[in-house]
Amino acid sequence: MTELVSMSLSEAFDISLAVLEGNGFSRDHAEAIATVICDAQRDECHSHGLYRLLVCVRTMKTGIVDGKAKPEVFDHAPGIVRVDAKKGYSLLALNAGLSSLMEKARNNGIAAMAIQNCFHFSALWPEVEKLAEAGLAGLAMNPSHSWVAPAGGRAPLLGTNPFAFAWPRPGSEHFVFDFATSAVARGEIELHSRAGTPISQSVAIDRNGNPTTDPGAALAGAMLPFGGHKGSALSLMIELLAGPLIGDLTSSESKALDGGIDATPMHGELLIAIDPKRFTDEPVRHSERAEALFNAVVAQGARLPSQRRYEARRRTLSTGHVSIPTALYNDICALLA
Amino acid sequence: MTELVSMSLSEAFDISLAVLEGNGFSRDHAEAIATVICDAQRDECHSHGLYRLLVCVRTMKTGIVDGKAKPEVFDHAPGIVRVDAKKGYSLLALNAGLSSLMEKARNNGIAAMAIQNCFHFSALWPEVEKLAEAGLAGLAMNPSHSWVAPAGGRAPLLGTNPFAFAWPRPGSEHFVFDFATSAVARGEIELHSRAGTPISQSVAIDRNGNPTTDPGAALAGAMLPFGGHKGSALSLMIELLAGPLIGDLTSSESKALDGGIDATPMHGELLIAIDPKRFTDEPVRHSERAEALFNAVVAQGARLPSQRRYEARRRTLSTGHVSIPTALYNDICALLA
Repeated sequence: MTELVSMSLSEAFDISLAVLEGNGFSRDHAEAIATVICDAQRDECHSHGLYRLLVCVRTMKTGIVDGKAKPEVFDHAPGIVRVDAKKGYSLLALNAGLSSLMEKARNNGIAAMAIQNCFHFSALWPEVEKLAEAGLAGLAMNPSHSWVAPAGGRAPLLGTNPFAFAWPRPGSEHFVFDFATSAVARGEIELHSRAGTPISQSVAIDRNGNPTTDPGAALAGAMLPFGGHKGSALSLMIELLAGPLIGDLTSSESKALDGGIDATPMHGELLIAIDPKRFTDEPVRHSERAEALFNAVVAQGARLPSQRRYEARRRTLSTGHVSIPTALYNDICALLA
Repeated sequence: MTELVSMSLSEAFDISLAVLEGNGFSRDHAEAIATVICDAQRDECHSHGLYRLLVCVRTMKTGIVDGKAKPEVFDHAPGIVRVDAKKGYSLLALNAGLSSLMEKARNNGIAAMAIQNCFHFSALWPEVEKLAEAGLAGLAMNPSHSWVAPAGGRAPLLGTNPFAFAWPRPGSEHFVFDFATSAVARGEIELHSRAGTPISQSVAIDRNGNPTTDPGAALAGAMLPFGGHKGSALSLMIELLAGPLIGDLTSSESKALDGGIDATPMHGELLIAIDPKRFTDEPVRHSERAEALFNAVVAQGARLPSQRRYEARRRTLSTGHVSIPTALYNDICALLA
């Protein structure tokens, strides 16, 4: 039984803003972060919801992040917008570059945005969803900290490296997915560690490279990628495209920089935006063929990605309220003191 | 014990050319196809090697493919080259558009090529490897025939939908991967069916949606995606980007068009090319950071993707000869009559 506190979405936003502004974030950063945190809470993504306020403040207190950094946008090439986050959080940098990314995608058909030197905690689905809202398809990816061994390996090297994609569905909930390329989330192993329960088979190895279901041994060893050598290859692609390609850190470089303080990771992010209207002369007809594909998925009893999240969103929007554990609420209020 | 016939690479090319030209392919198509078939044989990818001559000729004899089609290249948008293969095989269309794709990637930083209305049998690694040889990173993907159920579903809807990626490694074997988003290759299930041996757990379901290790039941039912809902999401992305986005067929539309004759599938393909020199001012330094990542993979005893294929390539190039089963050789020679 967990005691809960219910609050309206606007109360959640106001508290988030107050916590962030009261702990060293500029108004601009606080608004960008509070928006995404409240969007995640609305969709009942608790790990990226109001809980993250604690992590943001903890990271700020380490002194490594610049809470007032002003991101700088560079029109780097006809198909590339580059945003230097200047050691601030990624979200203000994302917002700063987004309209240029969209414009370039509409002009060229395809364009990329590189966000550099950013502290990054957020899920990628809100970012690609913004592209879908603008009628664009989008991909997003970033490294994290080196917690994952490559397939066939025995030591941490890759990040949990999320990969997200969105396809616009005008008048409907967009087709969006966002998954970690690790077999499970690191937070899931940490929860098992605290509860003293075993983790699943085939998601981690111990310090000697042997399979383990002991969460402590897994945290001291390495997580494994999802899907064997295929997931591992995908994770390496993400390291390359959101790391060396854009002149930013790999997951092992980011982990080394962190130096064990366990703050929000600093690294880069790559987004790719694609305009379906530029690819064919009949985007509406072909969009209907995509709808037929989605309908065929649902008709056979399978779920579309994000379906559960959209159901949560509808629930929240019907009441206008979100709920969080009272203990978390108290921890957040303590940051207002 | 399989009896083998050994031949030089140039003999393999000449035989391929003669078979294709003798069975309705124009010189241009025959050269493009023979090159890729011999590259695959060189790398000991037997399923995409000389064996494919039999499939190409069988498909040609159905009358659905135009062996003399002249692909038409359209400068569709600043970041998009579109090639209409006009119901010919994909490879001549690829070659026709490749220089424009590279030029657009170098100008803009990122660009896409849509190949439309093509019959497609080839592995994608030779295509992204060509981009890497030109100093570009590349992605390629295409649908196939609807043999794969979405995660949580019970009926075939998605293709085996390959996804390939290359990263240029100047002076070295490029970082290349190319994997099907199905848990295993369809050919592997067919081999088990012929041998009467069971398939692995969790790679297929029967006609009623229940897990099966019976290859016959799997072929009548559906294959499963690799990596559960994550691989399934990736496969859906490929359907969308190499299907409706470019105005071409999804895997289930392609299968319906085939009408059970089991020829090479007709559909589209999407390639994305990225120029690392356009993303940072220090591409060489960042390329060295990518090398450090590759070295860290190998140092812990893991393999880089394609490592086995590159080893086969080195073996073949050291002797200059490839070997194929005598029975296959005889079947190929019969096509010369």
